[in-house]
Amino acid sequence: MAYRQTPARLQKDGEQRERILALALSRVADGGFTALTMQGLADDAGIATGSLYRHFSGKGELAAEVFARASQHEVDTLGTLLKASGSASERLSRGLHQFAARAWGSRQLAFALIAEPVDPEVDEQRLIYREAYAALFVTLLEQGIAAGEFQPQPVQLTAACLVGAIAEALIGPLSPPARAARDAGQSRVSLEDVSDALVTFCLRAVGARPSVLPKPASPTTATEDPP
Amino acid sequence: MAYRQTPARLQKDGEQRERILALALSRVADGGFTALTMQGLADDAGIATGSLYRHFSGKGELAAEVFARASQHEVDTLGTLLKASGSASERLSRGLHQFAARAWGSRQLAFALIAEPVDPEVDEQRLIYREAYAALFVTLLEQGIAAGEFQPQPVQLTAACLVGAIAEALIGPLSPPARAARDAGQSRVSLEDVSDALVTFCLRAVGARPSVLPKPASPTTATEDPP
Repeated sequence: MAYRQTPARLQKDGEQRERILALALSRVADGGFTALTMQGLADDAGIATGSLYRHFSGKGELAAEVFARASQHEVDTLGTLLKASGSASERLSRGLHQFAARAWGSRQLAFALIAEPVDPEVDEQRLIYREAYAALFVTLLEQGIAAGEFQPQPVQLTAACLVGAIAEALIGPLSPPARAARDAGQSRVSLEDVSDALVTFCLRAVGARPSVLPKPASPTTATEDPP
Repeated sequence: MAYRQTPARLQKDGEQRERILALALSRVADGGFTALTMQGLADDAGIATGSLYRHFSGKGELAAEVFARASQHEVDTLGTLLKASGSASERLSRGLHQFAARAWGSRQLAFALIAEPVDPEVDEQRLIYREAYAALFVTLLEQGIAAGEFQPQPVQLTAACLVGAIAEALIGPLSPPARAARDAGQSRVSLEDVSDALVTFCLRAVGARPSVLPKPASPTTATEDPP
């Protein structure tokens, strides 16, 4: 960058960078990381592609920053729910229901964040954010065990298992083929099906009392899609 | 490809391709996908880099095929264990112990397959193979539910949760920083810690009877590493 870094210039640069990131997030929310192209983004922002490269070394760095911002927001939201009032079981249940509902409400974005095949820079961020989610569950597990609500267990490993279970339970129903089937009226999996099953799985897994599990809608597997 | 496709030539091509894939797998097993470079592989094989491109369009396609072959071998091995004799709980327990032990015995390869940040072509394959693992668990869950060993539950969603929990439980202990800590004698997490915790988590999650759970080594979390 050869131009002079005056305070006014720095501020203008910072504002442009924020604007670009907001436009980039909106592209990912609409069409996944596939839709995040440097040319398309420059068009959205009404700037030359070269100006984008003043802010980001390339698609990988840009995608990683969009990912990190969106994920941090989800981590913060889940953290607030898990730290709210109520028993550890209630907080886990409420946090998971809300997390699933947020993913359901922004399916393209949620799938992009969790599982869309994308640049290795985003995969790096995924590993980092999985640890951030796991740290939230470690705290909750320690509280639940201390309160006698959950069975004693190695909390780091259980927290990792929870993070994996949650991500994987959401990947299928949020994936583009599943969304297309639902839009075409061919799928009967609802948000309630997914989040009740997920909450039951997680509460059982940590050894919560059976009385805190969601009531089963039906004793069969009839509300599920075929594989 | 301008040269003549005689039967002898085709056979020689097929043999060279197999040899390249074996050398590529060996590179990934030693140093992860990072170590899989076209130049390094051509050197290993004693051929020109251009000859590699006769077989694979590029690093992404090559990495995806190495991934698919190694993963298919793991899926087949787990499938054999899950379909062997014994109750559903016993088979789940045995399958998970063995799966974790295999990952532990080839940590670099296991981390590369599960979580190493890598080309999007490999991410695509990861989504496909997660479904292959899930299909194995669906069958086991249906048998366990029918036998009254597991609680009734939506088997597709539970299977997805199991796949995620297993992958995530292994990512941490297999990751390069964790391996380095263990090699330096700074880590106390053992294969037994991980696989017992994983088996307990999964058996509880599917609603197996408490009597089938592994006996806890200690009532505390003392054998765990800090985050």
